[in-house]
Amino acid sequence: MAAPAPNTQQEMRRRNLARVLHAVADGGPQSRAAVAARIGLTRTAVSTLVDELLGVGLLVELGPGRSGAVGRPGTALALSDGGPCGIGAEIGVDHLAVCAVDLRGEVRARTAMDAANRDSDPGPVLERLAGLVGEVADEARGLGLRPAGLAVAVPGLVARGTTTVVQAPNLGWTDLDLAPRLAEKALGGGALTGGGSGNGGDSGGVGAGGTAVCSIDNEANLGALAELWLGGHTPPPDDFVHVSAEIGIGAAIVVDGELLRGTRGFAGELGHVPVRPEGRPCACGGIGCLEQYAGEEAVLRAAGLDPRATAAGHPGPGARIDLLATRAEGGDRAVLGALAEAGSALGTALTGAVNLLDPQTVVLGGALARLAPWLLPSLEHELGRRLAGPPPVSVSRLGADGPLLGAAHSVVRAVLDDPLAHRA
Amino acid sequence: MAAPAPNTQQEMRRRNLARVLHAVADGGPQSRAAVAARIGLTRTAVSTLVDELLGVGLLVELGPGRSGAVGRPGTALALSDGGPCGIGAEIGVDHLAVCAVDLRGEVRARTAMDAANRDSDPGPVLERLAGLVGEVADEARGLGLRPAGLAVAVPGLVARGTTTVVQAPNLGWTDLDLAPRLAEKALGGGALTGGGSGNGGDSGGVGAGGTAVCSIDNEANLGALAELWLGGHTPPPDDFVHVSAEIGIGAAIVVDGELLRGTRGFAGELGHVPVRPEGRPCACGGIGCLEQYAGEEAVLRAAGLDPRATAAGHPGPGARIDLLATRAEGGDRAVLGALAEAGSALGTALTGAVNLLDPQTVVLGGALARLAPWLLPSLEHELGRRLAGPPPVSVSRLGADGPLLGAAHSVVRAVLDDPLAHRA
Repeated sequence: MAAPAPNTQQEMRRRNLARVLHAVADGGPQSRAAVAARIGLTRTAVSTLVDELLGVGLLVELGPGRSGAVGRPGTALALSDGGPCGIGAEIGVDHLAVCAVDLRGEVRARTAMDAANRDSDPGPVLERLAGLVGEVADEARGLGLRPAGLAVAVPGLVARGTTTVVQAPNLGWTDLDLAPRLAEKALGGGALTGGGSGNGGDSGGVGAGGTAVCSIDNEANLGALAELWLGGHTPPPDDFVHVSAEIGIGAAIVVDGELLRGTRGFAGELGHVPVRPEGRPCACGGIGCLEQYAGEEAVLRAAGLDPRATAAGHPGPGARIDLLATRAEGGDRAVLGALAEAGSALGTALTGAVNLLDPQTVVLGGALARLAPWLLPSLEHELGRRLAGPPPVSVSRLGADGPLLGAAHSVVRAVLDDPLAHRA
Repeated sequence: MAAPAPNTQQEMRRRNLARVLHAVADGGPQSRAAVAARIGLTRTAVSTLVDELLGVGLLVELGPGRSGAVGRPGTALALSDGGPCGIGAEIGVDHLAVCAVDLRGEVRARTAMDAANRDSDPGPVLERLAGLVGEVADEARGLGLRPAGLAVAVPGLVARGTTTVVQAPNLGWTDLDLAPRLAEKALGGGALTGGGSGNGGDSGGVGAGGTAVCSIDNEANLGALAELWLGGHTPPPDDFVHVSAEIGIGAAIVVDGELLRGTRGFAGELGHVPVRPEGRPCACGGIGCLEQYAGEEAVLRAAGLDPRATAAGHPGPGARIDLLATRAEGGDRAVLGALAEAGSALGTALTGAVNLLDPQTVVLGGALARLAPWLLPSLEHELGRRLAGPPPVSVSRLGADGPLLGAAHSVVRAVLDDPLAHRA
C-alpha cells in the first residue's frame, strides 16, 4: 500500500527511506549508485538514507565477492536476513497454518495442523492458532529475526479498516473482533505486542511506533496480494481479478496495483453474482448465485458425491478438492461434467466482472488452481462466446498457499513502506 | 485526480499550491488562516503560496464587506472569476453541446444544437462541434476568461490515456483520434492551442506548460465525475456506481473518489453484463446483455413503439426518452410494463456490480434520471430479493447535463490540480 503523499520534509524523508528499501526489494542486491538511478535521487541523498537504514538493521552490506556484477565488490546493499519478519496465519475450514517471512520475502519458519473449524466455537480455534503463532515466532527469534506483526487470513468478510470478522459462514462466526482475542493469547507474551490494526487502512496493516500489531483480512484478498507480490509475473499485472475457492467462491479485484476493498470491505463477492438469475436459492438469500453452480459443495453434489466425502488417502485440508482432482484425472464422467458446468458458470460471472472492470487478466488461484485443467476449457469457451476480446486466464503458481503467504508478506510490505515505525 | 506524490522540494511546492486552491474551491471564500487550518500548513507557508496564486491570477482578494463571516473584512480569498476556464463539449447521437465553466465552477457560456450524428461521417460532425467550441471560447474571452483546455464527452469507448475513440457504435465511429481533428479545426486559431492529452493519465486531462489541450472521454465517465464533483452530496460518496443511458446503457465506477478506468479504459460496461444468460443476442456479440432488456431501443420495442419514434412536440435530444416519460405519466400500460421490466434487468445487473464492488450507493443519471420514477420500484425490488443489505439507489440532480458539465469541470480540476501549468 502506498504511503500517503508527504506534505512536510519529515514525511518526505520517511517516504524516501521506503523508496530505497523497495528499490532493493524489487531489484535485489545493488550498489548505492544503482539505487540512486532507480529512484531518481542524487547519490548523496541516497547515501544518507542508506546509512540510516543500515543503522537500524533493515539493510546490510554484502561482503566482498558476494555482490556479483552489481557495483564494486563489498558495496552491494541487500535487505537484512536478520531484521524484522512478518508472521502470517490462516484460519481455514479444515486447517490452521502459520509462517514467518523475512524482509527478503523468504519463508523461514512454517507450521500447520488439520482442524475441524466448521461451525466452531472461536475460543478454542483462536487458542490453537495462538499456540502455532507462538511456536513460529519463537523459531523466527531463534534465527535472529524479530516478529514485526501478525496478519491473519480468514474465510469470511472483514469490515474494512478493522479486525472484525463480520461474517464467516463456514466457520459459523459473526461480528467477532479477532485482534483482542489473539492479542491476549498470542501477542501478549512476546515481541508481538500491541493492539489490533485494521486491514486496508491508509497506514497499512501494521501500526506505527515500533509496536507489532495484528491485522485480519479476507483470504481471497490476501491471496490476490500474494499473486501481485509473489506471482512471478514480470511486470506484475496492475489490474486483475483473482478467483479462488475454499468452500465458497472467493475473489479479489486488483486495480492499479491496489486491492479494491469496497465501502464496507466486502468487494470481490463473485460467488454471489447471479449466473442463473431465476435458478437455485442461495444461502446468502440471493437467487442463482455463482456459488450454487461452481462452489465446492455444488460441484460435489453435481458429480453425485457426498459433500463431506474425501478421497481415500487424502485427509486434511483440500481433501474434497483432491477427491475431485483425483476422479477427474481418472476420467470420471460425472466429475468431468460437473467441473465443466462449474467452469461455464464461472465464465458467465466473469463476463460480468470483465465488462465492469476491464482487467488485464483473470487469475485462478487457491483450490481452483488445482482444478484448472478441467475448469478452463468451458470457462474460456464461455468468455469467448460473450466477450469480443476476452482477457487471458492464467493459473496461479501459488495455489492454496496464496492467502498464508500474502498474510506474512503484508506485514513485510508494511515494514518496507514505513521503515522507521519498525526499528528494533 | 490526485497529483503524483512529490519527491522533491519543487514538486512539494506545486502540490501545496494545488492544496491551497482546492481548499478555497471546497470551502468557498475564506481567510489565509482558514486555509492554513484546513490544509495543516503554517500561516507563513500559506501566505507565500497565496501570494504566488494571487500573482498568477488564480486567486483574488474579495473587497471589504464581501467576505462575510470568514476572516477579517477585505482579506477573504476566492477563486478568480476571470482566470482560466474549462471548455466542455458533448457529442451525442442527436445533439452537440458546448459550455464554458470558470474556476468557481459556474457555467459562463453555453450553446447546443440538434444534430443527426447516428452512423455519421466524423468530418462534418467535428467541424460543427469546432464551430460551437469557437463560439463559446470567444464568448468566454469576452467575459475576461481564458480557455485553458477542451474536454469532449463521446458515447463510446475511449482508449485509456489517449484521445482515440476505439468504438462508438451509435455514431458508427471506430479507431478515430479526435484530438488532431479538433486541434486543427477548433484549437488552432485561438488560445486553445496544443496537441491532445489523454484522459485518465497520471497528469490529469490538461497538459503542462501553459498549453491548452484537448482530452476525450466516455460520456458515462464524465457523467460520474460530474456527480462526484457537482452532485450536491455532502460529503461526496467515495464509492459509487453511476448508471446512465443515451442509446445504450453506460455506467462508470468511482472507487475511493477516483474513476475506475480499467486496463484499456473500457471499465463500466454494465450494459453488457449478462442478465438473461441464454437470452437475446446482443450487437456486441454477447448473449442476454443488460442493454437488450433495459437499453432505450429495447424498452421502446417492448412497449410496442418504433425505436425511431419521438413524442409530438418533443423533437431533438432526449426525444425518445421524453416519449417514454410522457406515456408513462399518462399511464400507458405497455410503457409502464416495459419500464418495469427494464428496472428489473437493471437490478439483476447491479446485483452483480454490488457484489463485486461493494459501493456506498448507486446513482441513476443521464436519461435514466428522467425515467427513474418508473424504473426504481422494480429495480429496488430486484436488489432487495438478491442482496442482504442492498445499497441505496439515488437519482442524479444533474440528469442529462452530467457529461457536458463533467467535461468542462475536468479541465477546471486539472487547473486546480496543477496551477503553475496554467499561468496566463
